[in-house]
Amino acid sequence: MNQIKRVVIFGGVHGNELTGIYLVKKFDRAPHLIARSTFETIALLGNPQACAIGRRYVDTDLNRCFLRQDLANPNLSSYEANRAQEISQIFSQKNSQQSDLIIDIHSTTSNMGLTIIAASNHPDNLQLAARLNLLYPNLKILTPATENRDSSVLRSLSKLGFTVEVGPVAQGVVDASLFCQTEELVSTILDVTEAYNLGTILPVKNPLTIYQSIGAIDYPRNEKGDIEAAIHPQLQFRDYEPLNPGDPMFLTWDGESVLYEGKSTVYPIFINEAAYYEKGIAMCFTQKSIVSQ
Amino acid sequence: MNQIKRVVIFGGVHGNELTGIYLVKKFDRAPHLIARSTFETIALLGNPQACAIGRRYVDTDLNRCFLRQDLANPNLSSYEANRAQEISQIFSQKNSQQSDLIIDIHSTTSNMGLTIIAASNHPDNLQLAARLNLLYPNLKILTPATENRDSSVLRSLSKLGFTVEVGPVAQGVVDASLFCQTEELVSTILDVTEAYNLGTILPVKNPLTIYQSIGAIDYPRNEKGDIEAAIHPQLQFRDYEPLNPGDPMFLTWDGESVLYEGKSTVYPIFINEAAYYEKGIAMCFTQKSIVSQ
Repeated sequence: MNQIKRVVIFGGVHGNELTGIYLVKKFDRAPHLIARSTFETIALLGNPQACAIGRRYVDTDLNRCFLRQDLANPNLSSYEANRAQEISQIFSQKNSQQSDLIIDIHSTTSNMGLTIIAASNHPDNLQLAARLNLLYPNLKILTPATENRDSSVLRSLSKLGFTVEVGPVAQGVVDASLFCQTEELVSTILDVTEAYNLGTILPVKNPLTIYQSIGAIDYPRNEKGDIEAAIHPQLQFRDYEPLNPGDPMFLTWDGESVLYEGKSTVYPIFINEAAYYEKGIAMCFTQKSIVSQ
Repeated sequence: MNQIKRVVIFGGVHGNELTGIYLVKKFDRAPHLIARSTFETIALLGNPQACAIGRRYVDTDLNRCFLRQDLANPNLSSYEANRAQEISQIFSQKNSQQSDLIIDIHSTTSNMGLTIIAASNHPDNLQLAARLNLLYPNLKILTPATENRDSSVLRSLSKLGFTVEVGPVAQGVVDASLFCQTEELVSTILDVTEAYNLGTILPVKNPLTIYQSIGAIDYPRNEKGDIEAAIHPQLQFRDYEPLNPGDPMFLTWDGESVLYEGKSTVYPIFINEAAYYEKGIAMCFTQKSIVSQ
């Protein structure tokens, strides 16, 4: 088991997700809150310019700028492409005996409660997730279907760590209750990391419920690209609940239901996430499974 | 009683409030939905460029551009100042025997349910509001504390009409259930207007509960302007409920409650509205009163 030498906490990778921004600012003022004895902790604003203007991004979505080829490309000139290259420098000098762990704090307009998205399926990372799940039985755990080496998201810079998603909360808004829950979860991740380094963490033997993304679905759209339906009221706010063949998925402007026509039950997440309208994503489908540790 | 010759329905005065935008687009495709026999109905996107980029505004908040002096000022050059002047042209040629009525559809991240904000306290306008309230007992009615002649909001262009506010819904998101409720409310306003023109509307004698804005309060902020607290969890989503002296109002990042120190009970609205962070407004205070018709 490698020691974790450093934990890097990101907030504000999207400049209109205020929970992470104000948590990072709080940690800046009170670093003792994130200090632990066996590793260094850094808290960083991911996209300071987007935070300053209160928008998701300036030129392009920073959390899609971490493909290895893009990080190595000196010709990219968008603010976010350059910022991604700066951020990747932090993780570039690795000692093979020591690891970094990333905590990247996001919020969502979807009703995803507290969710962690694992940076990788590395056994140590899943052990950390399993330990967190014991402490937070309602915590949802997403794991990558494949390894993250060719991923464009920030968390892919490290094999250890998590994107934290908290919702529902509107863009540009702090919900105090979710803020407090997120702060507590981050603190617990640090505690579990400390126990991991100290070797005092006991392996979790309980089966772990995980969700794996298996694709995304767009809204019905007309030839101009305008959406022609909204998330069906019976599906709205039902993230992580089963969607069965024949269940209503969308409601058109004229009041007609559009049904889910897949062949098997899926578990939608990111239902009606504001930032995904422009990405052509109405929701992501996941498979739910139970894995032995 | 003057005839209402025309109803103008606005959506997308703010380009990230999707409910009104998709309603106006629906009315464009299906004008029979808003056609009535005694008046003309027009549906318009208030701020087309802001709608196209999915932001509240391009240069400045269109719904603060309707001061009479600004509408008459040829030197203003922002996109929204010019758009406000274009919009005001629609209402400039008035026949003294006929009136226009404005319906301006907005959404809010605050938990304001269905709210109408009266364009004026003109007795005919309050009668329309009272009739709507009979049909929608949960509808909340805001009335201006003073007449709107020096107001900067779009609805002030006419003495008859309402801003419709619907929430909570995140910016950049359609909530199908709220979409349907808003459509139904707009249709009912048209029906009530038709009855008003036909003289078949019976005066409402029941007392009417109204809310009048008496001011706004900002978040606690530090010297840089950063907010130092969020809406207290006990106040979040409690729009229109009484806030009594000593009740918690904010929760600082360090977990301390900030209490309401006013001397009298107020009824906050627009609690935690995303667009008001930049305006220095954490919530608006209203007085609740019951008026006889």
